Amino acid sequence: MTHSIHEALQRIGVADQPAAVAVGTKWQTGAGELLSGKSPIDGSTLATFNEATLGDVGLVVDTAQSAFLKWREVPAPRRGEFVRLLGEALREHKADLATIVSWEAGKITQEALGEVQEMIDICDFAVGLSRQLYGKTIASERPGHRLMEQWHPLGPIGVISAFNFPVAVWAWNAMLAFVCGDTVIWKPSEKTPLCAIACQQIVNQVAQNFPEAPDGLSNLIIGDATIGNALAEHHDVPLISATGSIPMGRAVATTVAKRLGRSLLELGGNNAMIVTESADLEMTVRSALFSAVGTCGQRCTSLRRLIVHESIADQLLTALKNAYQRLPIGNPLEPGTLVGPLVDQRALDTMQHALKTAKEQGGIVHFGHQIDETEYADGCYVHPAIVEMPGQTDIVQQETFAPILYVMRYRTLDEAIEMHNAVPQGLSSAIMTNDIRQAEQFLSPAGSDCGIANINVGPSGAEIGGAFGGEKETGGGRESGSDAWKAYMRRTTNTINYSTELPLAQGIKFDL
Amino acid sequence: MTHSIHEALQRIGVADQPAAVAVGTKWQTGAGELLSGKSPIDGSTLATFNEATLGDVGLVVDTAQSAFLKWREVPAPRRGEFVRLLGEALREHKADLATIVSWEAGKITQEALGEVQEMIDICDFAVGLSRQLYGKTIASERPGHRLMEQWHPLGPIGVISAFNFPVAVWAWNAMLAFVCGDTVIWKPSEKTPLCAIACQQIVNQVAQNFPEAPDGLSNLIIGDATIGNALAEHHDVPLISATGSIPMGRAVATTVAKRLGRSLLELGGNNAMIVTESADLEMTVRSALFSAVGTCGQRCTSLRRLIVHESIADQLLTALKNAYQRLPIGNPLEPGTLVGPLVDQRALDTMQHALKTAKEQGGIVHFGHQIDETEYADGCYVHPAIVEMPGQTDIVQQETFAPILYVMRYRTLDEAIEMHNAVPQGLSSAIMTNDIRQAEQFLSPAGSDCGIANINVGPSGAEIGGAFGGEKETGGGRESGSDAWKAYMRRTTNTINYSTELPLAQGIKFDL
Amino acid sequence: MTHSIHEALQRIGVADQPAAVAVGTKWQTGAGELLSGKSPIDGSTLATFNEATLGDVGLVVDTAQSAFLKWREVPAPRRGEFVRLLGEALREHKADLATIVSWEAGKITQEALGEVQEMIDICDFAVGLSRQLYGKTIASERPGHRLMEQWHPLGPIGVISAFNFPVAVWAWNAMLAFVCGDTVIWKPSEKTPLCAIACQQIVNQVAQNFPEAPDGLSNLIIGDATIGNALAEHHDVPLISATGSIPMGRAVATTVAKRLGRSLLELGGNNAMIVTESADLEMTVRSALFSAVGTCGQRCTSLRRLIVHESIADQLLTALKNAYQRLPIGNPLEPGTLVGPLVDQRALDTMQHALKTAKEQGGIVHFGHQIDETEYADGCYVHPAIVEMPGQTDIVQQETFAPILYVMRYRTLDEAIEMHNAVPQGLSSAIMTNDIRQAEQFLSPAGSDCGIANINVGPSGAEIGGAFGGEKETGGGRESGSDAWKAYMRRTTNTINYSTELPLAQGIKFDL
Amino acid sequence: MTHSIHEALQRIGVADQPAAVAVGTKWQTGAGELLSGKSPIDGSTLATFNEATLGDVGLVVDTAQSAFLKWREVPAPRRGEFVRLLGEALREHKADLATIVSWEAGKITQEALGEVQEMIDICDFAVGLSRQLYGKTIASERPGHRLMEQWHPLGPIGVISAFNFPVAVWAWNAMLAFVCGDTVIWKPSEKTPLCAIACQQIVNQVAQNFPEAPDGLSNLIIGDATIGNALAEHHDVPLISATGSIPMGRAVATTVAKRLGRSLLELGGNNAMIVTESADLEMTVRSALFSAVGTCGQRCTSLRRLIVHESIADQLLTALKNAYQRLPIGNPLEPGTLVGPLVDQRALDTMQHALKTAKEQGGIVHFGHQIDETEYADGCYVHPAIVEMPGQTDIVQQETFAPILYVMRYRTLDEAIEMHNAVPQGLSSAIMTNDIRQAEQFLSPAGSDCGIANINVGPSGAEIGGAFGGEKETGGGRESGSDAWKAYMRRTTNTINYSTELPLAQGIKFDL
Repeated sequence: MTHSIHEALQRIGVADQPAAVAVGTKWQTGAGELLSGKSPIDGSTLATFNEATLGDVGLVVDTAQSAFLKWREVPAPRRGEFVRLLGEALREHKADLATIVSWEAGKITQEALGEVQEMIDICDFAVGLSRQLYGKTIASERPGHRLMEQWHPLGPIGVISAFNFPVAVWAWNAMLAFVCGDTVIWKPSEKTPLCAIACQQIVNQVAQNFPEAPDGLSNLIIGDATIGNALAEHHDVPLISATGSIPMGRAVATTVAKRLGRSLLELGGNNAMIVTESADLEMTVRSALFSAVGTCGQRCTSLRRLIVHESIADQLLTALKNAYQRLPIGNPLEPGTLVGPLVDQRALDTMQHALKTAKEQGGIVHFGHQIDETEYADGCYVHPAIVEMPGQTDIVQQETFAPILYVMRYRTLDEAIEMHNAVPQGLSSAIMTNDIRQAEQFLSPAGSDCGIANINVGPSGAEIGGAFGGEKETGGGRESGSDAWKAYMRRTTNTINYSTELPLAQGIKFDL
Repeated sequence: MTHSIHEALQRIGVADQPAAVAVGTKWQTGAGELLSGKSPIDGSTLATFNEATLGDVGLVVDTAQSAFLKWREVPAPRRGEFVRLLGEALREHKADLATIVSWEAGKITQEALGEVQEMIDICDFAVGLSRQLYGKTIASERPGHRLMEQWHPLGPIGVISAFNFPVAVWAWNAMLAFVCGDTVIWKPSEKTPLCAIACQQIVNQVAQNFPEAPDGLSNLIIGDATIGNALAEHHDVPLISATGSIPMGRAVATTVAKRLGRSLLELGGNNAMIVTESADLEMTVRSALFSAVGTCGQRCTSLRRLIVHESIADQLLTALKNAYQRLPIGNPLEPGTLVGPLVDQRALDTMQHALKTAKEQGGIVHFGHQIDETEYADGCYVHPAIVEMPGQTDIVQQETFAPILYVMRYRTLDEAIEMHNAVPQGLSSAIMTNDIRQAEQFLSPAGSDCGIANINVGPSGAEIGGAFGGEKETGGGRESGSDAWKAYMRRTTNTINYSTELPLAQGIKFDL
Repeated sequence: MTHSIHEALQRIGVADQPAAVAVGTKWQTGAGELLSGKSPIDGSTLATFNEATLGDVGLVVDTAQSAFLKWREVPAPRRGEFVRLLGEALREHKADLATIVSWEAGKITQEALGEVQEMIDICDFAVGLSRQLYGKTIASERPGHRLMEQWHPLGPIGVISAFNFPVAVWAWNAMLAFVCGDTVIWKPSEKTPLCAIACQQIVNQVAQNFPEAPDGLSNLIIGDATIGNALAEHHDVPLISATGSIPMGRAVATTVAKRLGRSLLELGGNNAMIVTESADLEMTVRSALFSAVGTCGQRCTSLRRLIVHESIADQLLTALKNAYQRLPIGNPLEPGTLVGPLVDQRALDTMQHALKTAKEQGGIVHFGHQIDETEYADGCYVHPAIVEMPGQTDIVQQETFAPILYVMRYRTLDEAIEMHNAVPQGLSSAIMTNDIRQAEQFLSPAGSDCGIANINVGPSGAEIGGAFGGEKETGGGRESGSDAWKAYMRRTTNTINYSTELPLAQGIKFDL
Repeated sequence: MTHSIHEALQRIGVADQPAAVAVGTKWQTGAGELLSGKSPIDGSTLATFNEATLGDVGLVVDTAQSAFLKWREVPAPRRGEFVRLLGEALREHKADLATIVSWEAGKITQEALGEVQEMIDICDFAVGLSRQLYGKTIASERPGHRLMEQWHPLGPIGVISAFNFPVAVWAWNAMLAFVCGDTVIWKPSEKTPLCAIACQQIVNQVAQNFPEAPDGLSNLIIGDATIGNALAEHHDVPLISATGSIPMGRAVATTVAKRLGRSLLELGGNNAMIVTESADLEMTVRSALFSAVGTCGQRCTSLRRLIVHESIADQLLTALKNAYQRLPIGNPLEPGTLVGPLVDQRALDTMQHALKTAKEQGGIVHFGHQIDETEYADGCYVHPAIVEMPGQTDIVQQETFAPILYVMRYRTLDEAIEMHNAVPQGLSSAIMTNDIRQAEQFLSPAGSDCGIANINVGPSGAEIGGAFGGEKETGGGRESGSDAWKAYMRRTTNTINYSTELPLAQGIKFDL
């Protein structure tokens, strides 16, 4: 096999018997249940090892906390240099890391490479940030005083990530955390342990050659939800950044809130595209296609709802069905494949159940069936589905993590925007139009209520330069670009009195 | 009496029989328990009315939500004009509002006037903000694309405030919320209902003369914790901004987290001042005095811990005790008074219990006794206490909302900073020193872990231009200046494709 | 007469015999030539007085410099309070000031009121700025070091303004200068001395009641170009902000450059509107009309070139000519008038000469004639002109300060943008289109090369919230909103070493 | 010889017969006078070639302009990738480039390496910037409108640099220009042509492997002041960034102003250090030493004036003289050398003349003599001078580009700051003190009037993260960090009307 995951792992330096816990650069075997990592491509077992236990959490957090006390005093531009070297290491291992991603997450090579590229991009961005973690200097209202605001390192950051972006989401968090002076404790999805181990191994190698990097800067702990919960409860982890489902996020948020900690949540989306009568239909089809079937519909930003003006709905549906008909589905490592497998049987069952429900709620389902004829008997391959719906029924309001595209029709743009916003999630959104007023209405305060709102580009596939995240049940967190880094630091407001007087703010007099 | 609260209320236009609920400009009598508002000055009854009930919450939120849909489309600079007019109205009613604050919260006139001035200041600041709610324009990595980030109105904001800043904290939140395009639902402390009613009345008058102001822009609901809890649970209140105790904040945060809403928390502080051997002792005494006994020790930023270099501790203690000895304690409305009453008997009991505990834990207590000889038999007047402690025992780690100043000694600055940070709260802090290295160490990443850290100015009495709030159990929220306004808006990241191509981010190819 | 300028002046407190120089609050008669201020409305003499002489410049600058040394130490928020009070005074005198503007500059009442409103708006904006003159805190690359950037007051600012915005342009500069801690020396156009005197008088009254305002904060010096030149040469005037013609700006810039001072230039525009085939024609006509004939074509942002897609050119021309036909031209103080007089005979001559030249260069001229039948024999009233041009000949490339609208046709948008940019000026621009790609192309790096580029709104009539100014021969300056205030301050970059080491940047070792 | 410049040049790929002009990647022999580049180390001839002529300027500018039209449309993050690759190439050639710098500019190896490191640092910074060239989105005052501000590429940038930072200053400008979408035309000092040729060669190699890099992105033109003047006059070079002497800057500024172009000037400094009675004297000596004798006193930020409190002046002078006594002076390529040669005989003459003048003006000169015994007969080696001055006489107010440290005494800090500011230049400054009030006074609006003001770190040796440059005759430009990039772009303010109405700003009504 040309893209052997084992060779890729070897080139990265991952041990044959990987361990579930990395306490800084030290690998440590877990004492928990046996975990058998299977590939969604063919169901083959990729790795077998014991998960971490709750007992490991304390050690890892303590190590991360000790490392933090040193790392926070390393000048930020030096921390940036560390991240720059990480970026170089990722460039070196780009193909291998993509291979591992494909094997574990089932992504096609192009998307796996894109995901690693995203890691590299965020490294470059973070290097720049390392001299730009700007606070403000502020004029005081009092003579002989000045104000300023500084951003300081926060502490060990817990990163809980999902299978569908098994490396990039960690990188988004970790690279910002590193330049911000924080240490990182990563709890990846149990479905993609090797991705996490490979990343940790790359960090270890760079860290071992970087004198200022304390051991414990980057840590890994692979286990089930109890591990995530223990991190969420831990008082020495001031920030939990969690990506995943809404129920998971709700649990994390509540646990963290109880101890008055901080959460950064990137939860489910139910992303829609409005297609107006002035849309470029050819671009709409291509854009919808990538957004709806990319990563087999398992992106948090996957397109799930198409809200189409009635005047063009038939034409667009025909074009879409035609495109879906021709989708190359199969082994994601094969060049040319656009749709790989679902991540596991449970995802398949959920999808089929959703399609069944959609039908019951009045939907007309096109495609969506399991593909049995695949050569890989244990992979869960499906033909992405298009479902014409009479309206936004219950099933449409839920995020089903699978390639189902619900299509609804609208008459006026006001109505379309109302439908658009009438779901509990608020991640990503798009409008296809060549009409300025329509486009701007969609971007206005009364338009899309999502964290991401695009014009003539689908909801999926963000650049790292903007802030990424969403509103409502998506959880409100923002990662990656813009000033998302502020979530990883603490702000301190400073008043400096250099006079010999003690004037009070607001002109208060208080003299004994 | 020159400062009659009733005349003040009349001049503001408050009805003789005030009601517990304002649904926009409509006052509505509560159906809940009878609430008897008493003045901490003399225990006299200031107002009697029925509290709101849970049933009122729904109506108020619905009204605020309807108003929001209109208000969000009013251009921000026009919203700023509304706030400018509010500022004018506050200037007009400054003295009267201060009188009401003194009567209900027991503040001395100077501090009450300062609190109203803070409202006026935040109005001015918010007017400026109304044209400066800046997002970013960002270069895209894709040809023919551009990125931008806009900040849009968020929705009805729930404001839960405490008795000790009965008007300013609301203003901090409400004025920012108003320019941000939000509507406000205020649940004030039951101890200061008339302050809230007066503010609401002032807003009503301005709103009724402002054509674009929808009814329901500002709302009031006076009741107990169940009202606050109902707001925290309500899905149509995207942000709860709560000021008060840590247990209250913890409850609110958990409730809001369960529904994946946003909290902005300003909870307890346990604020310290480090006094180094190079401090200006005269300034230290004055600064500590105001911070420790201002508002009778009932500010969230009140000075509670004095960490003094051993070489100057005796000298400083002597000077402090001398100053405390001379404190004018009594009716806060009398000119010259610096220390008014505690808010109620429970506060008095808590203080006395804390002093007793401190003694048991090795403390030497100076002053701290109730003052019986006051002419106002039912006011809870105390002599602020100084307590020399052998170390940071349990009682020192708690926030006792009363004028108790614990004094500890240290040898090295590292040790002092460690003591400083070894409490669960993280609001405000100060160092008195004339030594640059000491000052900067205190402000550095390894220095004070508080949201506010000052040099040669006490922890209490912030200007509105900086972000106000703290870390750890203080809750992490930031209000007032800097970019605190962002908490009151939602961010939308927009990608605009104006090309005829559909390049994907990260260079992914996905062509059917 | 209802709008008597003399009553207006009286209400503002301007003396019957106004003086040419205000050294702070002290009025001082000039010793220069006799200046007779005439109204463009009817040629009547509004005021007669002696201009300032070069000898006055030194005294005024010295006073402004002395005042600066005090004003720079007044806390910025207090300076903001001064500007807030100025805003209140302007609100009070809004109608009167507008009347004076109309009489001296010939503006219609609506535009005169709008100009005063712009002064008020910039006051509000500046008040907000007074707590937001943000510098940056920056992480250092060296341990035990921190960096920050502060913005400090700059010094006395020379403001040279033109007749067409006789009060707003000064306010843009002065209000920012005041909050920035600078003092101001204003040399207004000799055509509008009373406007300047009225503004100075308003400032004087506020200043006299503001304890921290040093005498010399605001100064006025009315005279000819030699005065402006003397200011430009003066070493104690670090910044000259000049608005006017390109030759004037070129002279000022060169003079200031010789002494290595700073210039902020707002010079000529040659502003165009591209009208594409998808434009809303009704909006286009209204928008072009206001932009082209407002202030009788004497705004720096006046629309001078209309670049129309050939497919709609005839239709648009017909509609425009129809609208021009119906223009109410006459006394600007009369309600209903939309077009007042040109400022003087010279403006009329220049206009007529330009029309003649345009004809010689192939133009077809519609309207443009002087209106003789006006009741005010000595006012220079014209019918605004539309000139169809075969291309952008020499005359089209010049800014003729009069209501001439050149109309050209184009085939492709690339061609239109090339035409658009092929003039030496670069102030304002607009595109009328409902097509996203066209709009975005116009706003893109390869689109309009102007400082202002609008979509579906004409080039004229900016809000104060954005930065105002242009590129190329327009001079590059930016005033009013965004971060234009930085031009009025000096930046200081600070490195603070609080360690006991002396590490060098870039890792240099230099040990004896 | 271990550090052979010829080998270094070869490894970089510089031709044996270097040419004076690079039109993009094409080298072209000059037709001007023969230039013989001599090393200040030993007077040996390093290269001989014909200078460029005025005729070359046109070609180079045209090429840069054509390249600009392409480069401005390359997405900024891709431009960042180009700069990242440049950074990699500079890392690869760091030692070689440092060798060339040492040979041509006479810098010691540590400083030469530091200068190359600065180039690398600015590359990293610029890469980050490439996604952070942020404009603002702004709320409009009009319904259905929005405002935004974008920063667009400016055009070909002329960079005129000096011998003393023969590579870093170009990099500061060029790297920012490249990410900003500009092209660059470099006119280096005739004293350091090989440095420039080597840099251009490195860019060429990277550009040739970067598909989007148009030929003409980076250009070089080596010649005398007439070349610089021609660039300054050229209308297609919107920005001239010039580093060098005040007379040069004055000439450039005036020429550019005449055509209403933009100048970014970094001219002379006359940098002082105030040493207060609380200063750490050991750190003061080390800091003053590096700042005063580094680069043999030929940095624009070199320490030239020491303003010492009278109470410690004798002690400090003794320590300084002792340190000067022990300075290792000689071949800058030798390890251990701290002071290399002056750049040429003229520099030596100027220095000696200044010392003579200082004596005449009352100075007591220590050291300062030429060192004849050096083995390199034709190098101009001197012993850096300390001159005790009775006050700031004429000679002290001038910048003599040589290692002369004038020492003056003061009594009060106010007096010291007055002396500090009483020179025409305003680049860099420092105070050595451990007293907060003194330090803050120095950083306050009434303190140092320089662009750079430091605490306990000398005036020389800035990090790239802050904005670099100065006030007064230093020219006002800012390069390198913070938002210095804005000088390399043009700002466009955009109003987008997406409503069907045409409301005017400031509420003006203008209806036909």
